[in-house]
Amino acid sequence: MSTTEPTPDADLLQRLAALAVHAGANVQPGQFVSISAQVGGHEPLARAIAGAAYAAGARFVDVAWFDPLVKRERLLHSADEDLDVVPPWLGDRIETLGRERAANISLTGQVRPGVFADIDPARVGRDQLPALKQTAEVINRRELNWTVVPAPSVGWAQQVFPGLDPAEALRRLEADIRVVCRLDEPDPVAAWRARSDELQANAERLNARRLDAIRLEGPGTSLTVGLLPSSRFIAAGMDTVGGITHQANVPTEEVFTTPDPARVDGVVRATKPLTLGGTTVDGIEVEFRGGEVVRLDATTGADVMRRWIERDPGARRLGELALVDGDGRVGQTGTVFHETLLDENAASHIALGSAYLMCLDDEADHPRANRSAIHVDFMVGSRDVAAIGIAADGTETPLLVQGAWQ
Amino acid sequence: MSTTEPTPDADLLQRLAALAVHAGANVQPGQFVSISAQVGGHEPLARAIAGAAYAAGARFVDVAWFDPLVKRERLLHSADEDLDVVPPWLGDRIETLGRERAANISLTGQVRPGVFADIDPARVGRDQLPALKQTAEVINRRELNWTVVPAPSVGWAQQVFPGLDPAEALRRLEADIRVVCRLDEPDPVAAWRARSDELQANAERLNARRLDAIRLEGPGTSLTVGLLPSSRFIAAGMDTVGGITHQANVPTEEVFTTPDPARVDGVVRATKPLTLGGTTVDGIEVEFRGGEVVRLDATTGADVMRRWIERDPGARRLGELALVDGDGRVGQTGTVFHETLLDENAASHIALGSAYLMCLDDEADHPRANRSAIHVDFMVGSRDVAAIGIAADGTETPLLVQGAWQ
Repeated sequence: MSTTEPTPDADLLQRLAALAVHAGANVQPGQFVSISAQVGGHEPLARAIAGAAYAAGARFVDVAWFDPLVKRERLLHSADEDLDVVPPWLGDRIETLGRERAANISLTGQVRPGVFADIDPARVGRDQLPALKQTAEVINRRELNWTVVPAPSVGWAQQVFPGLDPAEALRRLEADIRVVCRLDEPDPVAAWRARSDELQANAERLNARRLDAIRLEGPGTSLTVGLLPSSRFIAAGMDTVGGITHQANVPTEEVFTTPDPARVDGVVRATKPLTLGGTTVDGIEVEFRGGEVVRLDATTGADVMRRWIERDPGARRLGELALVDGDGRVGQTGTVFHETLLDENAASHIALGSAYLMCLDDEADHPRANRSAIHVDFMVGSRDVAAIGIAADGTETPLLVQGAWQ
Repeated sequence: MSTTEPTPDADLLQRLAALAVHAGANVQPGQFVSISAQVGGHEPLARAIAGAAYAAGARFVDVAWFDPLVKRERLLHSADEDLDVVPPWLGDRIETLGRERAANISLTGQVRPGVFADIDPARVGRDQLPALKQTAEVINRRELNWTVVPAPSVGWAQQVFPGLDPAEALRRLEADIRVVCRLDEPDPVAAWRARSDELQANAERLNARRLDAIRLEGPGTSLTVGLLPSSRFIAAGMDTVGGITHQANVPTEEVFTTPDPARVDGVVRATKPLTLGGTTVDGIEVEFRGGEVVRLDATTGADVMRRWIERDPGARRLGELALVDGDGRVGQTGTVFHETLLDENAASHIALGSAYLMCLDDEADHPRANRSAIHVDFMVGSRDVAAIGIAADGTETPLLVQGAWQ
């Protein structure tokens, strides 16, 4: 038996690695660096990032490898009652990374899409690894300078371009990644600084309106999302407690905030599929009442997603509202990437589960933010979905119409 | 660019996995299981073992992946002073496995032999990962039921059979592994139980002699190894504190003991090459005086090995003496596997570094056993090397001559 596997473009990997280390996590000399990567496709980029991080002065680079095929063995053979077991050392490692003020770089893009498609979704939904509840805690304490970057692989490329042969699909995915990550700019790190300033200015204009709620209106969607008194929109440029500026996503085209988890009402239809622990969930429709999900339907993967939102009470409430305009590179490609990192930057989105405390200006609001072990973004925006601002007195103002800020 | 890679035989992997889980670690229902595996070749066996462990009732199976190419990035780009940094979570994980009374299955066989050959050996010798000092401690507390098994890979196969094409080399290595692991027996697990009883009987005959020292005599070798008052030979069949019987190596053909680290004198010439953290060390010659290494030469890899034995005072003294007769399957293949697990079971060997406390009957002797963060076996036996027992009164008795017990 033999397999013939095309390999990623070495020059692209070097440029992506530099972006992850410098524009993304902004690795500092003497830092521990953790890379989260999947076995069976992320290896070349993980190694390039390790090299770039050491060259930037990293003290040690540790890769947290996740193998979807080992998880598959669990889903096939483990006892039912053990499927939500998480061994203690996985969470302890995240806590230690936080205490050590480490950098964290996560690679995304499923290397084996559909690998759990033939397994009972009730079992699939119970094993939420490699997601760990400690991650949200450490991020909310702003202990890590972190980023998420896309890792081109043959598996992912064939999911995005199913009609093409593997080598051609990989080339197409790489070309799209080059565009959305602005690697076609003469100085991609500088290009991201400029775009980040632009996004920050958009966020500040929104914050100046002192909105009480935002309504999304479009085909199949009419959802009102209440905001907390000190909710403010921010862009993915962030600072750690120690003052390290980092860009949490590469690419990033969003401004986002923490909503009031008790005031979300209406119905929302997803505009892109979502990949949840290896399962594709498509055609999502969710109804909220008093902040809580009262109905969740989907054309595929509904049972897996229902399991995720049964995890804890906060898993049924909103932790994030993000607005994305039509100026970003992701939307312009027209590609559905089947990957939250990219698809969420093509369209406005909401997330069920844990909230980002850095989006609340007043610590008095922190106890009101949503808490959960999960954070699941899904895309609800498109050119046909308008975002309307609602002031405390009920006055409505259009914010985004046809993808343009008003 | 494309690569064509032969893949391991699926039936052999299933049989090896069953051996690792049942005859080796003896995984119990409800246990955590850790698998140590290398990225780039060990994946198929690691997955098969995960499946077999879950089927045996494992609570969770966690793979500790090690990627030699990420280590290479460190050796190429890290600052000199950071090369011996070990992040705290790696050792903490081992301690937690011990506390949880987990099972541990380590896969051996370099997936990328020679990957550090072009790098300054002074740097290579300073990074001893994935070896961790906590492993010896947890093993000496008998907290884990553990085993080490060979994992066939193309990289390793090409090291063992450099003249053959990759697919043919892999087939040859697989055939040898089938033989040395007794997978050609109708019931391999039963075959190992029988061989283990035989080895245990050999150990007991040796112990009945109440030897004070053992001398190895052969071409280039004349080494006297003193024993402690309660040193006893054991075979690789062991029990944990909780009473789980396990076989620490598959295959195993040795009986071994803990020597007196203060009474080793003479010179010894290795009879097989050794692989040390990815570096081949060949033509080793070591001189001991008063238990300590006073000279270490090698035709290749000498500087790397010298770095290892500078790690701590115990790294220059003996932690193990093992006798291997000519009845084992490994020696019969005639193959040099470039892998301690197999080569050490073809020939008598000694190890620098940490000792096994379970080889000392009397706890009063424990403080006299050698302690170190390293444990490096190297092969010093062959049909031409005799082992001679020396009683307290100086009487000498031949133990092994031409590979046969006397």
